[in-house]
Amino acid sequence: MVLGKIVGTVVCSTRNDSNIGATYLLVEKTDQTGKKKGDFLVALDLIGAGHDELVLVTEGSPSRETPFTTEKPVDALVVGIVDLIDDNNKIIYRK
Amino acid sequence: MVLGKIVGTVVCSTRNDSNIGATYLLVEKTDQTGKKKGDFLVALDLIGAGHDELVLVTEGSPSRETPFTTEKPVDALVVGIVDLIDDNNKIIYRK
Amino acid sequence: MVLGKIVGTVVCSTRNDSNIGATYLLVEKTDQTGKKKGDFLVALDLIGAGHDELVLVTEGSPSRETPFTTEKPVDALVVGIVDLIDDNNKIIYRK
Amino acid sequence: MVLGKIVGTVVCSTRNDSNIGATYLLVEKTDQTGKKKGDFLVALDLIGAGHDELVLVTEGSPSRETPFTTEKPVDALVVGIVDLIDDNNKIIYRK
Amino acid sequence: MVLGKIVGTVVCSTRNDSNIGATYLLVEKTDQTGKKKGDFLVALDLIGAGHDELVLVTEGSPSRETPFTTEKPVDALVVGIVDLIDDNNKIIYRK
Repeated sequence: MVLGKIVGTVVCSTRNDSNIGATYLLVEKTDQTGKKKGDFLVALDLIGAGHDELVLVTEGSPSRETPFTTEKPVDALVVGIVDLIDDNNKIIYRK
Repeated sequence: MVLGKIVGTVVCSTRNDSNIGATYLLVEKTDQTGKKKGDFLVALDLIGAGHDELVLVTEGSPSRETPFTTEKPVDALVVGIVDLIDDNNKIIYRK
Repeated sequence: MVLGKIVGTVVCSTRNDSNIGATYLLVEKTDQTGKKKGDFLVALDLIGAGHDELVLVTEGSPSRETPFTTEKPVDALVVGIVDLIDDNNKIIYRK
Repeated sequence: MVLGKIVGTVVCSTRNDSNIGATYLLVEKTDQTGKKKGDFLVALDLIGAGHDELVLVTEGSPSRETPFTTEKPVDALVVGIVDLIDDNNKIIYRK
Repeated sequence: MVLGKIVGTVVCSTRNDSNIGATYLLVEKTDQTGKKKGDFLVALDLIGAGHDELVLVTEGSPSRETPFTTEKPVDALVVGIVDLIDDNNKIIYRK
């Protein structure tokens, strides 16, 4: 999984993914302290991640492994909102 | 998913993909404002994306998760035509 | 899918892939005009792509989605021989 | 598989992965001698890898191939704790 | 598939992959002439590739498509030992 921050949303009216209702979020990848890296991806969000929250994103085929995304053409999914990251027992990120 | 603009088409007469009728599009990846990055991929299109439109492309195995692409050797699929992208509540792309 | 030109063949006598008879081709990736990029991969070919032909290669798991490659450990497959590519309605590659 | 060292943990309270109880570890990729490369990923751990241990991480879809991760949106899994690596019959890493 | 040379082995006592008995090999990626590139991966070997042999490695999900690796968390598999590579009808590698 990779870490990223929610920076925006992507709206598509013509869609081919059967995910009616779920939101595509614009995610900027970050390092483990939450510092943005200038590298973006678009991920589907089902857990209501808010603007500027640090999230964990699963990429590729495993993104389909939720009841909602099964058999959908989704290749990036927000799987967790990060509360805390420690590095060598030192807290380096806290929500 | 990644963002890209439709820049052309790729025509193959000898094919091994059983996707008779669908079009391979030449897609140039863009950043979140629609600015082209000089990096290209070929994606299958089933929703009629037009020239120079900004689209959302799913890569890898999830590309097979439509009724049309199931059990086909497709690794990139146009899943949405982008209408609008906002970054930090500011609209940065509008169709 | 990515574009590439057939530059050679790879012969293996000890194999673990049950693809008896099919050929592993050495493919050099190209840009959309067919210009070689110096980046190589090995892809399975089932449609008889010839030397120096521009082909479309599917990567990863979808490579298994043909009757011949199903349940085989293949991660790159030639899915089409390119006849023509246009960019902004200008033909940039013709076989 | 890639080699990496466990450098921390990632705690998420809001989760979408049904992996209640398993830990997300912050893993820094290493070379074959265990030297850190400054490149991080987040992997699920089911075998109790400890801080600073060198581990083998499987990426992508195969991460789901354990009884615990089956049908879960996990794209990186610790599959082994490395005891020893030899390069050309010389031991280059020992736990 | 990618080309690489066997440079060593990786031994793990604590494992989560149910591949008891199979060997993890340290593989250094090579170009098409067998020249090493300084980029390493760990692949499972089931065909007895020996030290310094040039092999073909399948990456990702298709690695599971052998009777032995099915439903195992393996993302890289040695699928062939290379005997010969030709580039433009000139032999550029021979075992």
